[in-house]
Amino acid sequence: MKTQLVILGATGDLSRNLLLPALYKLCQAGMLKEDLQIALYARREYTLESLLKEVETAWKEQGIDTRHWQAFSRRFVAYTRGGLDVEGISQLRDVVHGNAVFYLALPPGVFAQAAEYLAAVGLNREEGGFRRLVIEKPFGYDIESARTLDQHVRASWREDQIFRIDHYLGKETVQNILVFRFANLLLEPLWNRNYVEHVQITAAETSGLGGGRGGYYDQAGALRDMIQNHLIQLFTLTAMEPPSSLIYDDLRSEKVKVLKSVRPIPRHAVNAFVVRAQYTSGVVDNQPVPGYLEEEEIASESSTESFAAVKFYVDNWRWRGVPFYLRTGKRLKADRSEIAIQLKLPPLHLFRETPLDRLEPNWFIFEMKPAEAIYLLAQAKTLGLELKPRSLVLRAPYREPGTEGFDAYATLLLDVLEGNRAHFLRFDEVEWAWQVLDPIVKAWQSDSGPLATYPAGSEGPPEAERILDSETHRWRAVE
Amino acid sequence: MKTQLVILGATGDLSRNLLLPALYKLCQAGMLKEDLQIALYARREYTLESLLKEVETAWKEQGIDTRHWQAFSRRFVAYTRGGLDVEGISQLRDVVHGNAVFYLALPPGVFAQAAEYLAAVGLNREEGGFRRLVIEKPFGYDIESARTLDQHVRASWREDQIFRIDHYLGKETVQNILVFRFANLLLEPLWNRNYVEHVQITAAETSGLGGGRGGYYDQAGALRDMIQNHLIQLFTLTAMEPPSSLIYDDLRSEKVKVLKSVRPIPRHAVNAFVVRAQYTSGVVDNQPVPGYLEEEEIASESSTESFAAVKFYVDNWRWRGVPFYLRTGKRLKADRSEIAIQLKLPPLHLFRETPLDRLEPNWFIFEMKPAEAIYLLAQAKTLGLELKPRSLVLRAPYREPGTEGFDAYATLLLDVLEGNRAHFLRFDEVEWAWQVLDPIVKAWQSDSGPLATYPAGSEGPPEAERILDSETHRWRAVE
Repeated sequence: MKTQLVILGATGDLSRNLLLPALYKLCQAGMLKEDLQIALYARREYTLESLLKEVETAWKEQGIDTRHWQAFSRRFVAYTRGGLDVEGISQLRDVVHGNAVFYLALPPGVFAQAAEYLAAVGLNREEGGFRRLVIEKPFGYDIESARTLDQHVRASWREDQIFRIDHYLGKETVQNILVFRFANLLLEPLWNRNYVEHVQITAAETSGLGGGRGGYYDQAGALRDMIQNHLIQLFTLTAMEPPSSLIYDDLRSEKVKVLKSVRPIPRHAVNAFVVRAQYTSGVVDNQPVPGYLEEEEIASESSTESFAAVKFYVDNWRWRGVPFYLRTGKRLKADRSEIAIQLKLPPLHLFRETPLDRLEPNWFIFEMKPAEAIYLLAQAKTLGLELKPRSLVLRAPYREPGTEGFDAYATLLLDVLEGNRAHFLRFDEVEWAWQVLDPIVKAWQSDSGPLATYPAGSEGPPEAERILDSETHRWRAVE
Repeated sequence: MKTQLVILGATGDLSRNLLLPALYKLCQAGMLKEDLQIALYARREYTLESLLKEVETAWKEQGIDTRHWQAFSRRFVAYTRGGLDVEGISQLRDVVHGNAVFYLALPPGVFAQAAEYLAAVGLNREEGGFRRLVIEKPFGYDIESARTLDQHVRASWREDQIFRIDHYLGKETVQNILVFRFANLLLEPLWNRNYVEHVQITAAETSGLGGGRGGYYDQAGALRDMIQNHLIQLFTLTAMEPPSSLIYDDLRSEKVKVLKSVRPIPRHAVNAFVVRAQYTSGVVDNQPVPGYLEEEEIASESSTESFAAVKFYVDNWRWRGVPFYLRTGKRLKADRSEIAIQLKLPPLHLFRETPLDRLEPNWFIFEMKPAEAIYLLAQAKTLGLELKPRSLVLRAPYREPGTEGFDAYATLLLDVLEGNRAHFLRFDEVEWAWQVLDPIVKAWQSDSGPLATYPAGSEGPPEAERILDSETHRWRAVE
């Protein structure tokens, strides 16, 4: 049976910059089924021909390979004009036959309506084939709004029809965490509180609020934009027990178990677990840039954080006592995303003569940016005549430079089409991610707790040190 | 108090090619004490001036840096002519004042006499300073001759005056085993029979029997020339428990404990534990080369092995059941020396769909040749859309290309001068190394057991597979 991918919001940024290029790559690589069709829905005045022409021209101008454009464009079957209302959406009944995936490439505020209207015109009913609904983050604004959104969507869609995308879960290096953890004997004996000193998860960006995202961002902030979804996903993949399979619910259940084991952040001591900050003007990549409050669409006295650092403890048998530090920020010194696991120091009586500040503990590092790589920081002998340790890096670039791969959206689109839900979020994951952050969300909603600042282009606020448990714990350099 | 290094056999290969260059480098680097003097003793007709002139000229011809020759040559205080007899050696009484190290750069057959004659003329007596004696391998020909040699030497020298050199113990990568094992938390939890599948120690050479060594080698063979000393040292450093210090006897005692725990090879089943072979003519580095029996100074029906592979079990709590495979050979395909530790496979139920032959277990590898490097073979995700493992190498070159370091002799000469005995062999180490090999030595002395052949330039005889415990164990490629 043929399958149709219906993109709602087809003329928007997400559709044009991420979904269509990902589909094109899959098509070019022969990864799309012969009978997969693409249907577009949006408010703006286009015909299918004029929209495709515009996309092709834009890609050519951007230097994107369009050699397979002919074969690709044949998959498009309709451009339907309409707004977010039952009348507009009801037109899709004439377009959709067989299996259908509805991709809501829409602003988050209208997810619930779009899902409702699709159902209202009967497009949720799996009579002529399956019906799937793809939703992008943010999934709500706090735990209450997330539950409300979910209730609306699930009033007419079953959980197994809903695919909540966190595109981080489609990234090679993130999926590689699963393989690296569980296809190597090496890690499992070390992966617990006996040997791990602490874990740091970082997503640092140099970019600010370009592209008209200021309005959205000022409502969201770093905690909602990055930590609630991407960083918590990295955290649960790092901390979870081995799942019994990599498919369907087994993986997602293990991730939820981690979140359920997170020690609740006490409402009276939120500031011992979190640091928030805003960038001031500074220099990034040798260019002067404005501070957060001078950016477009930002409220003049906004207390929205552009940097957040959080500490979690996982109170289970594996992790009790090991802090997990998560941080993210905009306008930092460098683009760097990584998971870094620091092991404890071994007994060092053999190297008594070596000054202690030169002895580094082992680190395992999964780097997602700037390169995709795995490395291990170890101690080896100092070159020369003395038997003293020095640091050594065992590094494996994971993606060879110049190798172009599939991006996260390609991976995940294919999963949706094949019905593989392992790398999509189940609602209880979303809910528990809000749950662990709830004391912070509530504290900041009442605007309590200090808001630090950091110059754009720096490594973040010095206040981020505050949540570290020990003097031997240091934030890794963002460079 | 000044110290004198007295080289007996000063005009021989060892002295000219290894000792003097090592001393020169130490002098150049300012690592020799100001008042260290060098005295030479040999049979041949030289004066100090003519010998030094000849060495300097030879080095210049070989393109060796001689810029510091002046400062170096001032350290030489005497060239004494004499043979291996009391009369000759008694002349050294007039040369030696203060501390003295006697380095026997002599054929192994005369070690005992040289030690005796030095004592006979009183040069072993520590009246005016310390007196040390340096002996090179081979330490005997079998356990009985090793004991006899030791009794002769120790009739007039105390054990703590005797420095038995195994120059492998001076190599950077070998000393690095100690640092890598004990300065990283990473290894210790894995370093036992719960996680290690087997260990392979290889010393493969492309060279044959050049430089007039055929006569010596045909008496010795690969087992005595390489395994009894160098490879057993690598084996004990890999298998030993953490010592309580890296100095003096603590380290050596741990190595002896390993040898004492080696399961004795049963005399009736020697061939299940060892393979020997001789090379036939072949091609090495694109050059045709003769077979072992065609080499100079080799007995026409010699059964001396140019290749040997041995299996040990260490019957202690850490290693019971884990085979250690050691192999060495001449005229092999490549120069490769390494210690390779294979871990067991993890439970692979998560990767059920992956064909099993593509799943490799983890390996830790200490490479000494061709490069000095440490690496870890791990599994990572296959690039692309599927969640399947593939092999990945995390590698750290240990010595940067182009970095010239001190060679093993420099390290060890400095240790002798400073009285640091950790990296020299205690007699019980030598004795126990003979002990574990004794059933093999005895079997081959009675010429029982097959002698395989392998073409020069190959990876060794296929018969070497015979001693492997499992079909999943394979000799690593020699390339």
